Amino acid sequence: MVKVVIIGSGNVAQHLIAAFQNGPNSGTEIKLVQVYSRQIATVSHLVELDKITNEWESLMEADLYIIAVSDDAISLVAAALPFKNRLVVHTSGSVPLNALNDENRKGVFYPLQTFTKNKPVDFTTIPICLESENATDFQLLSKVAKSISDSIFAINSQQRKALHVAAVFVNNFTNHLYQIGEEICQEHQVPFGILKPLITETANKIMVLSPQDAQTGPAKRNDTVTIEAHQAFLSNENHLNIYNILTQSIQHNGKKL
Amino acid sequence: MVKVVIIGSGNVAQHLIAAFQNGPNSGTEIKLVQVYSRQIATVSHLVELDKITNEWESLMEADLYIIAVSDDAISLVAAALPFKNRLVVHTSGSVPLNALNDENRKGVFYPLQTFTKNKPVDFTTIPICLESENATDFQLLSKVAKSISDSIFAINSQQRKALHVAAVFVNNFTNHLYQIGEEICQEHQVPFGILKPLITETANKIMVLSPQDAQTGPAKRNDTVTIEAHQAFLSNENHLNIYNILTQSIQHNGKKL
Repeated sequence: MVKVVIIGSGNVAQHLIAAFQNGPNSGTEIKLVQVYSRQIATVSHLVELDKITNEWESLMEADLYIIAVSDDAISLVAAALPFKNRLVVHTSGSVPLNALNDENRKGVFYPLQTFTKNKPVDFTTIPICLESENATDFQLLSKVAKSISDSIFAINSQQRKALHVAAVFVNNFTNHLYQIGEEICQEHQVPFGILKPLITETANKIMVLSPQDAQTGPAKRNDTVTIEAHQAFLSNENHLNIYNILTQSIQHNGKKL
Repeated sequence: MVKVVIIGSGNVAQHLIAAFQNGPNSGTEIKLVQVYSRQIATVSHLVELDKITNEWESLMEADLYIIAVSDDAISLVAAALPFKNRLVVHTSGSVPLNALNDENRKGVFYPLQTFTKNKPVDFTTIPICLESENATDFQLLSKVAKSISDSIFAINSQQRKALHVAAVFVNNFTNHLYQIGEEICQEHQVPFGILKPLITETANKIMVLSPQDAQTGPAKRNDTVTIEAHQAFLSNENHLNIYNILTQSIQHNGKKL
């Protein structure tokens, strides 16, 4: 049996705790033996009280320690661990493997998803990107990851950096475009909800088509009449600026300008 | 019984034809009596041959004529119609009501969705934005729209313009961000598929949260360390340019700059 300790109590930590508690092999092959949380109460709805600690000295022996805290706290947490030569991983997309210190064996266990508090996710579909220093540790990470997800990838720190930047485009920036859509609707007294089926279908479409093949719209078909009408319509300078840059980028079809 | 004629054979026309053929009230309350298509063969898989014509003079008498053609062909088609005082609507988000001529009663029947050839959509969830010159025509449009969709809105030409621009942001531009995500993955030998569950969840999230509440990421939390690392990582000038502008826009939280 593989014993796992999760350190952290934020969004990612909470979703991981729930996934390990509910996983199909939970308690048999893989066991979440302890959670470290500065505030016990933050995770007490997810795991039995006797499995929660807020003292480094009380950390149990385990095969894997998953540090699921904010990026800038990872090194501090790694330095606080009162043991050596164990497998310690973090869950961040943007922090290199080497941010962990040399006292323990390093690894990364990065679930590539956006987690919302109180909104359950189906963890089995979430890609988990794994990295380790040696093959034995990779096997163990892989076994643990497979107990909660069907989608496991070996991703080195450079590739993970690329994925993290790409994720900013398809998640953070896409959501910001949703917000601009909402602002334009509000300005003209149209319910934003009218756009929601379109938003869903836009995401669904690239499950069957490449983004390049899925591209439509005035920029794609060089419809200058419509583009100029939109430019004249946009009263918000920031919206117009973003409209122009993305329109140009589509017209140049992603080539370097 | 309301008799409907569809003029056009492109993506929107084909999805409308299929929706009217398969609608719950199809053939009883609402009946698609004819389709006009320059090439008979383009729509012959969707509707019986004797219902298809490619001659203006053969257009049957009907209660509603839906012009589903490209934006710049709408006026030409409207001018070619060999009758007067009937209800004629177009399906465009960006063309004003007045692009239709004065020979007939004008209206708009705009299904707000992105249509992909050969990819069926559930028409009942697609918002249809209606506009007409008088209440009687609006009632008829409403009855026809309700026969294929559960989501009907009265939207005037100015509001429709706003919706169309907003749709460019949440559909065309969002899809372009997906493409940039794919380009970054390809450059670093990472399969783009890893990002697909994130793309799906990004769209799902705003079904329960406002885009403003759903916003996460380095720009939102003013994480300059990560932002600078991303800027240094992006080798494509166009990607970097878009990264900077959207990051700034999130940091200013959509306010005018």
